[in-house]
Amino acid sequence: MRIEIVCTGDEVLSGKIVNSNYAHICRRLEELGLEVVWGTTVGDDRKRLLEAFRLASGRADAVIVNGGLGPTVDDLSQEIAAEAAGVGLEIRQEWLTRMEAFFQRRGRPMSPNNRKQAMLPVGAELIDNPVGTACGFAVDIGKARFFFTPGVPRELFRMLDEQIIPRLQAMTGESGVNRLKRFHSYGIGESRADTLLADVIALAPDGSVKLGFQAHYPQLETKLAVRGASEDDIVRILGPVEAEVRKRLGSFVVAEDDATLEGEILEALAGRGGTVAVSELHTHGQIGGRLAACDGGRGIFRRGVIANDLGGIFAALDLRDHAGPLDQAAVEAAARGVMQVSGTDHGLAVLVAHGSDAGGGESDGTIFLAVASGDTTVSRAARIIGDEHRVRLGAVEMGLDCLRRHLHGLAFDERVDFEKSK
Amino acid sequence: MRIEIVCTGDEVLSGKIVNSNYAHICRRLEELGLEVVWGTTVGDDRKRLLEAFRLASGRADAVIVNGGLGPTVDDLSQEIAAEAAGVGLEIRQEWLTRMEAFFQRRGRPMSPNNRKQAMLPVGAELIDNPVGTACGFAVDIGKARFFFTPGVPRELFRMLDEQIIPRLQAMTGESGVNRLKRFHSYGIGESRADTLLADVIALAPDGSVKLGFQAHYPQLETKLAVRGASEDDIVRILGPVEAEVRKRLGSFVVAEDDATLEGEILEALAGRGGTVAVSELHTHGQIGGRLAACDGGRGIFRRGVIANDLGGIFAALDLRDHAGPLDQAAVEAAARGVMQVSGTDHGLAVLVAHGSDAGGGESDGTIFLAVASGDTTVSRAARIIGDEHRVRLGAVEMGLDCLRRHLHGLAFDERVDFEKSK
Repeated sequence: MRIEIVCTGDEVLSGKIVNSNYAHICRRLEELGLEVVWGTTVGDDRKRLLEAFRLASGRADAVIVNGGLGPTVDDLSQEIAAEAAGVGLEIRQEWLTRMEAFFQRRGRPMSPNNRKQAMLPVGAELIDNPVGTACGFAVDIGKARFFFTPGVPRELFRMLDEQIIPRLQAMTGESGVNRLKRFHSYGIGESRADTLLADVIALAPDGSVKLGFQAHYPQLETKLAVRGASEDDIVRILGPVEAEVRKRLGSFVVAEDDATLEGEILEALAGRGGTVAVSELHTHGQIGGRLAACDGGRGIFRRGVIANDLGGIFAALDLRDHAGPLDQAAVEAAARGVMQVSGTDHGLAVLVAHGSDAGGGESDGTIFLAVASGDTTVSRAARIIGDEHRVRLGAVEMGLDCLRRHLHGLAFDERVDFEKSK
Repeated sequence: MRIEIVCTGDEVLSGKIVNSNYAHICRRLEELGLEVVWGTTVGDDRKRLLEAFRLASGRADAVIVNGGLGPTVDDLSQEIAAEAAGVGLEIRQEWLTRMEAFFQRRGRPMSPNNRKQAMLPVGAELIDNPVGTACGFAVDIGKARFFFTPGVPRELFRMLDEQIIPRLQAMTGESGVNRLKRFHSYGIGESRADTLLADVIALAPDGSVKLGFQAHYPQLETKLAVRGASEDDIVRILGPVEAEVRKRLGSFVVAEDDATLEGEILEALAGRGGTVAVSELHTHGQIGGRLAACDGGRGIFRRGVIANDLGGIFAALDLRDHAGPLDQAAVEAAARGVMQVSGTDHGLAVLVAHGSDAGGGESDGTIFLAVASGDTTVSRAARIIGDEHRVRLGAVEMGLDCLRRHLHGLAFDERVDFEKSK
């Protein structure tokens, strides 16, 4: 089935808004094996909207139109849809009633121009929007089925999952259910993961599992899109593939599905009644920031300390008799120091030395990191290839990952793909 | 002039990458008065690429194509451009030489498939890429001029500004120069700014200045796009408008053009040989993070301390005899405390209390903030409307802004639009 997306609105056309709705729609569809083959962006312009609908209707089986369902005069989707379908507009009393109730619940009067949102092409299929006043609708234009959706992301996302995707799946004539299994890893690049995992889908019946990757440096997401006749069928198909992926990616897997690296760390600490404090140099405090954001008031993450040089780190941690250089001894002292001054039972220190230009224009940075817990302190050093920004991202992820590895009893200094070998 | 954008590549088509290149191109063009009227997204697919080029060439005067200039087999832009233009491909020795030098400088061998990047449609105008191996080019297809650009953002941005925009401006036949003047403000919403500034463009000759806004909560960007016959003309046109915008937005302007709020703070401190340390609660350390990122090794920002509760803040700042509640006295103690333990001459403390649901589903949060310098400590409290995420963003910005106001001798507690009045 050929699916196209038409995004409408001056703000999207002019780049005032980055079009993340488009990416969201396509990703969701692709995860379910529905392929988008063409995307069009046009403004709030009658002639161009009509032309975009006409062109899409000549190429596609299904078209998702996003935006233009609002109450103002520049929202033209219903009107142009009617024109393209060769029908008039009619008021849909059932939606008018819903809107009136919507405003009444909020204790606000309904503005007269909201009435326009209940005007749909004659014969259109109304598509519910449980969280807004813009109703969706579907209508045939030429040989294609057009689905009109609101531009507000929260409204679009829900309508897409609950209303549009089931209709598209019905159009393909395939029954069954879908699931997306995700693995988040740190330390393996996309090409190595691809090589490592290329044959795992052979463990499932032909075509039932699709393997995909999405790199968000420094993490890599490995996705298994599964299609089966039922939930039980999915479990049966996915089981061996999932187990094999987990085995091959091994200790590089930091979390699965909706879990995160920092979430796994806090869970592991919570499981043993543990607490942690962090000291960071030249990471812009991003490790503490991620742990704080994930802690959610549990008080597992207790303190984060950043400074502008190693002396500042030592001073902040009451290590006034310490001095440089920046090495593994220094980072071990910092990990112990931040644990002691914070009264936690774990301490993580990540200290970055930027700016060694290795020659040949290839810059890198050296990361020193240590984890202290009780009487034990472990540390490692690594050289990461890249500019300051990339080294910083790598240092944050490696710092968190080494804490995870320590908590889970995994190898602390397993080599990662972004590391310089020499 | 009608301009279209064609974005190519499976990763963009499938939503794997959010298409921020498109938004960047359109915004840059719009700032210069060049309007994009149609956007197309297609994958690495010969038939659809050809169809996209053909359709765009029939509608537009100029088309910018982004992506597909890489060395691999799925990069098809040169080949399909040649086909659409009805010409063959030829090797461009001047670019091959450039690429060989590029690899030699990096001490890496040039892979044979890079040769493909020097194959352009016969007669194409070569467009320089000073930072990569994908050269741009321009070619006529039908009645439209097509500009082919690389997908790597850094390479695209530079080629767009230095090479493509001047060519587009030459095509419009208008001589003259453009400038974009930008004001970054905190505390004024877009609708109030619009009302405040609606008539300022009347201070310039008709149509020579265009006023626009872009909200990036909590900041608002106010943009004046100016077109004039010469640089002197621009200065003459812009002068009175710029002065009036600055006057009306007043102390809400935090920075202009490429400057940032945190940059202005560090400049103000540098100007007096000052230093600063920050203590934060429930902001995920973002204030310290922004100052650290901007400091760039100058050592003006000295230390950042975050904790999970007020007791943790006091403990970290050697204020062990202090106790709650979270109020202005507490935040003043924290500002003085972080200044003293860090040995700086300025201290900023921002402490957030989340989670009061004000009823009617409208949540808010209370922000306490204080600036200490020498013997002076000033503080304020504010209630910000929104969920935790929005309150946190607001707290970070208000904290930085109050430090800026203190350093510049401006009113410390001027009411902002996002603040609850009661």
